[in-house]
Amino acid sequence: MPTYTPPLRDMQFVMHEVLHVVDDLTAIPKHADMDVDTINAVLEEGGKFAAEVAFPLNQSGDAEGCKLDPVTHEVTTPTGFKEAYAKYVEGGWPALACDTAFGGQGLPHIVNQCFYEMLNSANQSWTMYPGLTHGAYAALHAHGTEEQKQTYLHKMTSGEWLGTMCLTEAHCGTDLGLMRSKAEPQADGTYKITGEKIFISAGENDMASNIIHLVLARLPDAPVGIKGVSLFIVPKFLVKQDGSLGARNGIYCGGLEHKMGICGNATAQLVLDGAVGTMVGQPNKGMQAMFVMMNAARLGVGNQSLGQTEVAYQNALAYAKERIQMRSLTGVKAKDKPADPIIVHPDVRKMLLTAKAYAEGGRALLCYSAMLLEKEHSHPDEKVRKDAGELLAMLTPIVKAFITDNGHISTNACMQVFGGHGYIKDWGMEQFARDNRINMIYEGTNTVQSLDLLGRKILGNNGATLRKFGKLVGQLVAEEGVNEKMAEFITPIAILGDQMTKFTTEIGFKGFQNADEVGAAAVDYLRVAGHLVFGYFWARMAQVALREIAAGNTDSFYLAKVQTARFYFAKLFPETATLMRTARAGSKVLMDTDAALA
Amino acid sequence: MPTYTPPLRDMQFVMHEVLHVVDDLTAIPKHADMDVDTINAVLEEGGKFAAEVAFPLNQSGDAEGCKLDPVTHEVTTPTGFKEAYAKYVEGGWPALACDTAFGGQGLPHIVNQCFYEMLNSANQSWTMYPGLTHGAYAALHAHGTEEQKQTYLHKMTSGEWLGTMCLTEAHCGTDLGLMRSKAEPQADGTYKITGEKIFISAGENDMASNIIHLVLARLPDAPVGIKGVSLFIVPKFLVKQDGSLGARNGIYCGGLEHKMGICGNATAQLVLDGAVGTMVGQPNKGMQAMFVMMNAARLGVGNQSLGQTEVAYQNALAYAKERIQMRSLTGVKAKDKPADPIIVHPDVRKMLLTAKAYAEGGRALLCYSAMLLEKEHSHPDEKVRKDAGELLAMLTPIVKAFITDNGHISTNACMQVFGGHGYIKDWGMEQFARDNRINMIYEGTNTVQSLDLLGRKILGNNGATLRKFGKLVGQLVAEEGVNEKMAEFITPIAILGDQMTKFTTEIGFKGFQNADEVGAAAVDYLRVAGHLVFGYFWARMAQVALREIAAGNTDSFYLAKVQTARFYFAKLFPETATLMRTARAGSKVLMDTDAALA
Repeated sequence: MPTYTPPLRDMQFVMHEVLHVVDDLTAIPKHADMDVDTINAVLEEGGKFAAEVAFPLNQSGDAEGCKLDPVTHEVTTPTGFKEAYAKYVEGGWPALACDTAFGGQGLPHIVNQCFYEMLNSANQSWTMYPGLTHGAYAALHAHGTEEQKQTYLHKMTSGEWLGTMCLTEAHCGTDLGLMRSKAEPQADGTYKITGEKIFISAGENDMASNIIHLVLARLPDAPVGIKGVSLFIVPKFLVKQDGSLGARNGIYCGGLEHKMGICGNATAQLVLDGAVGTMVGQPNKGMQAMFVMMNAARLGVGNQSLGQTEVAYQNALAYAKERIQMRSLTGVKAKDKPADPIIVHPDVRKMLLTAKAYAEGGRALLCYSAMLLEKEHSHPDEKVRKDAGELLAMLTPIVKAFITDNGHISTNACMQVFGGHGYIKDWGMEQFARDNRINMIYEGTNTVQSLDLLGRKILGNNGATLRKFGKLVGQLVAEEGVNEKMAEFITPIAILGDQMTKFTTEIGFKGFQNADEVGAAAVDYLRVAGHLVFGYFWARMAQVALREIAAGNTDSFYLAKVQTARFYFAKLFPETATLMRTARAGSKVLMDTDAALA
Repeated sequence: MPTYTPPLRDMQFVMHEVLHVVDDLTAIPKHADMDVDTINAVLEEGGKFAAEVAFPLNQSGDAEGCKLDPVTHEVTTPTGFKEAYAKYVEGGWPALACDTAFGGQGLPHIVNQCFYEMLNSANQSWTMYPGLTHGAYAALHAHGTEEQKQTYLHKMTSGEWLGTMCLTEAHCGTDLGLMRSKAEPQADGTYKITGEKIFISAGENDMASNIIHLVLARLPDAPVGIKGVSLFIVPKFLVKQDGSLGARNGIYCGGLEHKMGICGNATAQLVLDGAVGTMVGQPNKGMQAMFVMMNAARLGVGNQSLGQTEVAYQNALAYAKERIQMRSLTGVKAKDKPADPIIVHPDVRKMLLTAKAYAEGGRALLCYSAMLLEKEHSHPDEKVRKDAGELLAMLTPIVKAFITDNGHISTNACMQVFGGHGYIKDWGMEQFARDNRINMIYEGTNTVQSLDLLGRKILGNNGATLRKFGKLVGQLVAEEGVNEKMAEFITPIAILGDQMTKFTTEIGFKGFQNADEVGAAAVDYLRVAGHLVFGYFWARMAQVALREIAAGNTDSFYLAKVQTARFYFAKLFPETATLMRTARAGSKVLMDTDAALA
């Protein structure tokens, strides 16, 4: 019953009118020929795939779930998933942003990311099957030997094979140092891996002929803790010299989780029973290789929530215009109807605009982040690469935690617009809320993200990266500070930027004396930082829109942007007032509670 | 896998140490003999029923759901539900607070309410079967003829029969004036009722021998809108003169909804095909009779979220003490273990304390409300009845919306404490979040509650009732204003009380010029009011606890109260800073958005 329309116009606005991504891309040799039309054309086709192939399977996949055959250990994905994947492969979509050296199309990250936003809107569960493969691909591409790359990357690029990331065990999620899985070196240079992994997304499925698991495990002589973890390739089917499939490897699905959402994705318990693996990278340096894909995955999780927010918003907006119920507080609006459409009610608008402002703000931040990733990896100038990498490192936990928390707020608000119908599965709204809910948890809980941001990325370099972002804000303030029309957007970020500088110093000082002060402030701090970042992008979007309007452009898209920016600063951004107050309330009220939490 | 322990100690604290309910109860003739021991003994037994009979069916009921036989239109409830209900009847629990004139035990509302809190913690889906009956009982008791009462109330009191409330139709939820169901008067004084109802909780089931549906419908000559709606008794089986069951009546279950949660409760589509009904109360005055049960139901929904918050908290607390993962930021705490229990982390404590503070604050408000209900109905002094009724009318939307929103925040926070395990059904945490989610929607969405509060209950009498509550706050401030130890609890509510007076006048003035200003501010306003009320009760609880501590009482329960109060004022209450700011941002940023919401 829900519908989905790819938000191509807004993507184009962000990419071409706000960020001017083609200017940045053409400065990178491998994208020297990139142009606006190519990007738009790919995304238009990608949007069709998302809306026409993946989206129709979203509700049915949720209802049906995955099935495990306890004898063969094979998993059957929901009806239609396999066929949709075949179409995905046929369309060449797995190769979109992959290296041309392994058969990829070599398009920029941002194109793949916008494509994935649409896939996530359409069907997060289905999208995780090819999505996880990108993480495995990235880790192998960065840390694999030439032979490993040649063996695996071609078929992952073509989509013939899928990939997973196997980190978590029952007793260790955040704390991977507690890991128990073992890797015994063999005479032939391979390893026999034994252990049990849980929560492996897309961990077993019937979509591809092989699954390339990337598995963390310990060597016999490994140091304790996180510095004794190594990374291994453990394919479901061993791969022969000629690239054809050999024997079934000793890695089996022992069970599937029953979850709140993403029910169409197989969250697998994987039993490794002397499975044959080959090491990726150096012994005991597994986490370094894994971090390549964890950082990409964190951006990817933010993108999942962006997708959920967008699709929830679209459906709530349509319902609010159609559903008639009660009259406007200011008098009858739809005289020909027995009641007014509920969009006349201020709070219904507030719920809708909350989702819209968070979706469009999130899209701007994610597109900006994709360009940083591109520059970090491929820009010819080393300083640009370094700067981009540092800024991206700071923005990554914000993308992950702020956008997924906003997704929680937004999908629940959009569900609420439907009243009782929002709670009924047919309408599809509660699924968006359920599917989004995992995004706040996996790839490092949002609390872990906040500690990464405040402890490592900000205080860890004495606020240097924050100041780098502050300079961007400062530039915008300098540029628009005298423009009266921009004052409502510029003043709040100018003030918050100043406040954050003080606030950060203050927490840094307190944290130096008592590390729990950092832990007590971190979650609130991340949301304040998130609003500074969103506020910056909303101001830039308003700037572009106001210029177009001033130049006589009558496309209502620009007026819509200004209205949404205004809403954002009036109703969402002021949350920072409370957050700074509660962050400043310190750790004592939390930690001095042994009686309360007895 | 989850567990539940009835919070008897905290109930006793609120009832006997903070509110001194026995003093108030014994001033009411029918409760003249009531004492502390009786109340405690009943709740102890009630807690056993909740924990031992209802709770073990919570997860299985969620997984199994209800089944409709499309031929017989009969519904089978989840395994064990029927047997649990038989035990409930056998134990005499349906009669707890019912009128002794119809076989009830005549205990005070507050006892039944605390019992229901525990049932809601144990199993909201199951509890709704007997719970809805209380609403139908109350409407019949208040508005039925003597014959109707004699015919139905004895068997509803004994639990032989269940009851429902049939309001909603597919096209009308909030706006019952759009109702289409019709009642044709018959020669014998009965009515033939035709129409389709949806979202009827506990609408069909196999637990009792008869179901007494209370149905809203229109007479042929009824005025349009809400003033043309009448209320009818439509039993599943007609009742003969001698009280025995007659023919099956023409009211059938046409379908069951598939929902996000409360899956063990049968949310029925009911088809009335010339069903025989008798009118309750006067023609076209159905909403008056219905309001009796709607107000009770709104308190009941708040109580559902209190129950969900409490059980989610208990399980998250236990998990946070057991689950080891990472080390404390301030150094190793559990030297004998490979990692520290996660309760060492400040943000884990924050999530736990959020749920604890909202549960205990909600319990205080609900117990206070139950005493107001008791006084409104039964106090010998007319002025006390009137005052209690007015104050309760104002507090009802706060109970409904604030406590259910807090339940959403709390159940999600407690789920988050579990990391990935929180998303997995086995652990039970995600069910609390799903089950709680409906509470923000049904019995009037939380937006509707906020309009009821601000528009009707506050501005509707020029703030008179708010001032009445303000006096209670003022008394406490006067009493404790010079007590240094109470300053951290008294200062915030004294300030907020003053701010709210100004704030209310301001919105009233703006709303006079533009009614959308009320709609734009209402949701934020309700949360501010909720914090004033919770702040008041937290200050009173801290007052009692501090006095005990000062008197040398070493029971750590009192220290726990002070710690939780401190947390509440430091980390949750400051939300009011943002809420007053966003409420003041006005309606223009919401309503002047036609381009954005095109």
